[in-house]
Amino acid sequence: MKFNLIKTDLKTNARVGELHTDHGVIETPIFMPVGTVGTVKAVHQRDVDHDISAQIILGNTYHLYLRPGTNLLQQAGGLHKFMNWQKPILTDSGGYQVFSLSANRKLTPEGAKFSSHIDGSKHLFTPENVVDIQRIIGADIMMALDECPPGDADFKYASKSLDLTMQWLKRGIAQFNQTQPLYGHQQTFFPIVQGCIYADLRKRAANQVAELQCEGNAIGGLSVGEPTEIMYEMTEVVNAILPTDKPRYLMGVGTPVNILEGISRGVDMFDCVMPTRNGRNGMLFTSEGIINIKNKKWENDFSPVDPNGVSFVDAFYTRAYLRHLFVSGELLGPQIASMHNLAFYLWLVKQARTKILEGSFESWKSQMVKNLAQRL
Amino acid sequence: MKFNLIKTDLKTNARVGELHTDHGVIETPIFMPVGTVGTVKAVHQRDVDHDISAQIILGNTYHLYLRPGTNLLQQAGGLHKFMNWQKPILTDSGGYQVFSLSANRKLTPEGAKFSSHIDGSKHLFTPENVVDIQRIIGADIMMALDECPPGDADFKYASKSLDLTMQWLKRGIAQFNQTQPLYGHQQTFFPIVQGCIYADLRKRAANQVAELQCEGNAIGGLSVGEPTEIMYEMTEVVNAILPTDKPRYLMGVGTPVNILEGISRGVDMFDCVMPTRNGRNGMLFTSEGIINIKNKKWENDFSPVDPNGVSFVDAFYTRAYLRHLFVSGELLGPQIASMHNLAFYLWLVKQARTKILEGSFESWKSQMVKNLAQRL
Repeated sequence: MKFNLIKTDLKTNARVGELHTDHGVIETPIFMPVGTVGTVKAVHQRDVDHDISAQIILGNTYHLYLRPGTNLLQQAGGLHKFMNWQKPILTDSGGYQVFSLSANRKLTPEGAKFSSHIDGSKHLFTPENVVDIQRIIGADIMMALDECPPGDADFKYASKSLDLTMQWLKRGIAQFNQTQPLYGHQQTFFPIVQGCIYADLRKRAANQVAELQCEGNAIGGLSVGEPTEIMYEMTEVVNAILPTDKPRYLMGVGTPVNILEGISRGVDMFDCVMPTRNGRNGMLFTSEGIINIKNKKWENDFSPVDPNGVSFVDAFYTRAYLRHLFVSGELLGPQIASMHNLAFYLWLVKQARTKILEGSFESWKSQMVKNLAQRL
Repeated sequence: MKFNLIKTDLKTNARVGELHTDHGVIETPIFMPVGTVGTVKAVHQRDVDHDISAQIILGNTYHLYLRPGTNLLQQAGGLHKFMNWQKPILTDSGGYQVFSLSANRKLTPEGAKFSSHIDGSKHLFTPENVVDIQRIIGADIMMALDECPPGDADFKYASKSLDLTMQWLKRGIAQFNQTQPLYGHQQTFFPIVQGCIYADLRKRAANQVAELQCEGNAIGGLSVGEPTEIMYEMTEVVNAILPTDKPRYLMGVGTPVNILEGISRGVDMFDCVMPTRNGRNGMLFTSEGIINIKNKKWENDFSPVDPNGVSFVDAFYTRAYLRHLFVSGELLGPQIASMHNLAFYLWLVKQARTKILEGSFESWKSQMVKNLAQRL
């Protein structure tokens, strides 16, 4: 994998780059739609590709490991073939879901024992086997196993947790170096900077991660309940240390505003379930602000879903019609809202990229942040 | 509306025709996807049009009347505009849903009183107001209000019910003749032949309906629990009487085999929720037989959903992947299965049309009926 840093903004730390993978080039900054279990919920791959213009999607190792499972994924020739997605895929390590979804999880130095949230069956993730699983999935970008402590973890716990994550990281890298891709395309491995809301821990972690000279680096354990300002502060602390010539991935973030603030602080890659999850609940993100399409006020609004929108759904359907679908519990409602939101997120990062290249990112961002926070 | 009967099969009663409406030509025999409440469930209008190649869809007056309601539909400029569907629409009269869905329904000579299945609110459908409602919906083809008795109704009940339906029909036609389209395109009105499973009643009804010289005629009250052979027999009895130069619509039918048998007996138009409803439950209709995609046997079948299928989903996704989506409860599963089934139904009637034109319908049908009934 090769990362070309094309431009760094003069007024902010925003960056424009190109990430080259065997499945194509990713233009950064980029948002990665979440395709949890091998599907971006409610959206055809064709539309993720051509309508939403996604350049890379994310798969969840925890979910894919449980269903369809590694046997089936290997028989299929990896996730790209299984789901028929030809562009890059990034997988997380499964650590986050072990902590957020599974019951009876138990952490030991060896790894994380957990019970499946589906059938209660018992499993173990280790720094080594999550590499093996991601080899089988065939992700272009693989993530290290980490512990993701809650947002309110105290310093002592956070410090101990970070030690564990860093030990696991070394084992993960060793496993990565000892193993090979299975399907003929290259894979790379990103370490994750943890450290909760403690700048000292974040610095320690970022320095250790920076030394590893991996092909890209991630910031994890943010957007887990801490105040937004703290999230931004931690991002700044970490990005001041991480190498500038490698892509930086802020995991699980966030709202459109969070993403612009992240870009402004030198982040190149984002993922979040928000556009799809909130979309399924009738919340639309637009360049003018947030719409709750279920509200009575849209009942007879026969204007387009989003006059500025770039998805075909934005011009094709009206707000009144979309509201009717949600009120009536029709599946097409979540389908439309998911496509709209994803296309909007991709539009937003592409706009940011253009503005950085043009040198007008900061002023554009200031205005957008105001717009985006409004409730329409 | 104009119907051109192009060819009648020599060996069966199958027909090929063209139905001209202000929203375009419908090539018969045709299947009409059901768009209950202004959406063909789980499928974008774009795909109903271009991928499934539907030529006309059906809307349910009962559902549309309750949600979004006539006020909103009128403000929108009718259902075509509300849902952005440019091709023809047929609406039923709401009678069937009053009997199948609503609680506390009560029949009087005036009409059908019923409570909404959504909120219990009280409503009245009359032969006149369902014409008014369908004027507001703007359907190209409107249906008369009828009583649809259960499949096991006795002769006495069936006869009395038929009397009511025929009285209502006269009032419906009068209302139709006294009212005008609201949106600049022509609308037509189909009477419905009832009579349950009693050939005498069916004949009486068909004769009365035939005399009215409407632009098309429907057969209702079949596929409601009676044996399949009786349904075919009643269709034969009625079609022997209905005018040959007008399209015939067999309401709510049915399986792919039912449709071929209906075509063979001179039916031109069909609608049914089966392709979408069964699709959402993982049942796929194919030219080789029926697939329950949830079955374990498809777990690692990496062949296309349907190698003979005409929807993009058939070649794009594999059976193993589709099964995985259903097992995981992912929305994309029902989306794919609905598109496949609808495209298959449209393919089937188009094939029938081609075979009738070629003079090979009967032998083709015999083979298809065998294939279609198989469980794969």
